[in-house]
Amino acid sequence: MFEDILANVSKCIRLTAEEIPQFTDLLTTRSVPKKTMLLREGEICQFEGYIQKGCVRIYYLDENGFEVTLAFAVEDWWVSDIASFNYQVPSSLYMETLEDCELFILSPQTKEKLLDTIPKFERVFRMLVQRRLSALQDRLIHTISKPAADRYLEFIHLYPNISQRVPQYYIASYLGVSPEFVSTIRKRLAAKIK
Amino acid sequence: MFEDILANVSKCIRLTAEEIPQFTDLLTTRSVPKKTMLLREGEICQFEGYIQKGCVRIYYLDENGFEVTLAFAVEDWWVSDIASFNYQVPSSLYMETLEDCELFILSPQTKEKLLDTIPKFERVFRMLVQRRLSALQDRLIHTISKPAADRYLEFIHLYPNISQRVPQYYIASYLGVSPEFVSTIRKRLAAKIK
Repeated sequence: MFEDILANVSKCIRLTAEEIPQFTDLLTTRSVPKKTMLLREGEICQFEGYIQKGCVRIYYLDENGFEVTLAFAVEDWWVSDIASFNYQVPSSLYMETLEDCELFILSPQTKEKLLDTIPKFERVFRMLVQRRLSALQDRLIHTISKPAADRYLEFIHLYPNISQRVPQYYIASYLGVSPEFVSTIRKRLAAKIK
Repeated sequence: MFEDILANVSKCIRLTAEEIPQFTDLLTTRSVPKKTMLLREGEICQFEGYIQKGCVRIYYLDENGFEVTLAFAVEDWWVSDIASFNYQVPSSLYMETLEDCELFILSPQTKEKLLDTIPKFERVFRMLVQRRLSALQDRLIHTISKPAADRYLEFIHLYPNISQRVPQYYIASYLGVSPEFVSTIRKRLAAKIK
């Protein structure tokens, strides 16, 4: 049951036989049907979740009320609004499941207990936040500085696993272009491959 | 000499009398005159720097070669391209000093040694990255969703210490507006105050 999450953690730290149940006992499992909101703007994020199965979309609303997709998360990713979770402040984000999901959840309390009991987990969460910061920085810079067609190619190259599972209009909303534009690029690519 | 950086660290962890010199011995001091480039796009960032004195601007070039200011950093802030530093990949960023600066520097090697010697520093760096992620996420969302005048007011409210030290055209480049626009808002505000 815990193989995947333990493999994920073991990329950063080595747990002893004693520590493994100390960690897994703090996790709660959560099955969430697809199209369920995990978080809404204004709510305080109470979870840091490891995705065992499924796909989650993270987005916010722009000044015109349009959804802007910030990220997708699939198996072996952690999902949370880190700012809201750690400082217990209202979130600016929405999170919804795009597929049926199985999650392992840490709450602010169980995460704190985990860090008290096994302090080397600090490293796991540091690495996690670093990766997210790095991805967000890239997204901010590239959204502004790269043509949309290049960003689409980069997206399907970086996340082949996601681009095939997620509806085209969400990918468009991630890239900041219209669904018609994504459709046009796809057709052009298909024509090139033939 | 080390009072400020030790106070900064002590917000996250408690160092023993023995650990303090283990930490400070790993720091190198660097005096940098104003208008010096600390990092250029394409270079690999080799420092995680604590600003003892001075002001640094972090920016990137958009597709038209225009500078977009991503952040300013002043006393008691840490400055680094975390993605480039941690994964030793080329940076997309530029960093330049706006004033004469005094920095305490960790290199990838001394940071690794610090984390080996005093593992609880993981917490310091996790907190640091969390704050940066949170700021960047806010910036990404608000740049898109708030009117420029509101963002200017928010900026001077959040960073009064920075807005008075930094040339107006850099603040404009941070807010993504023209220097004339910042000038107009300032005049309007001054008229209201009178």
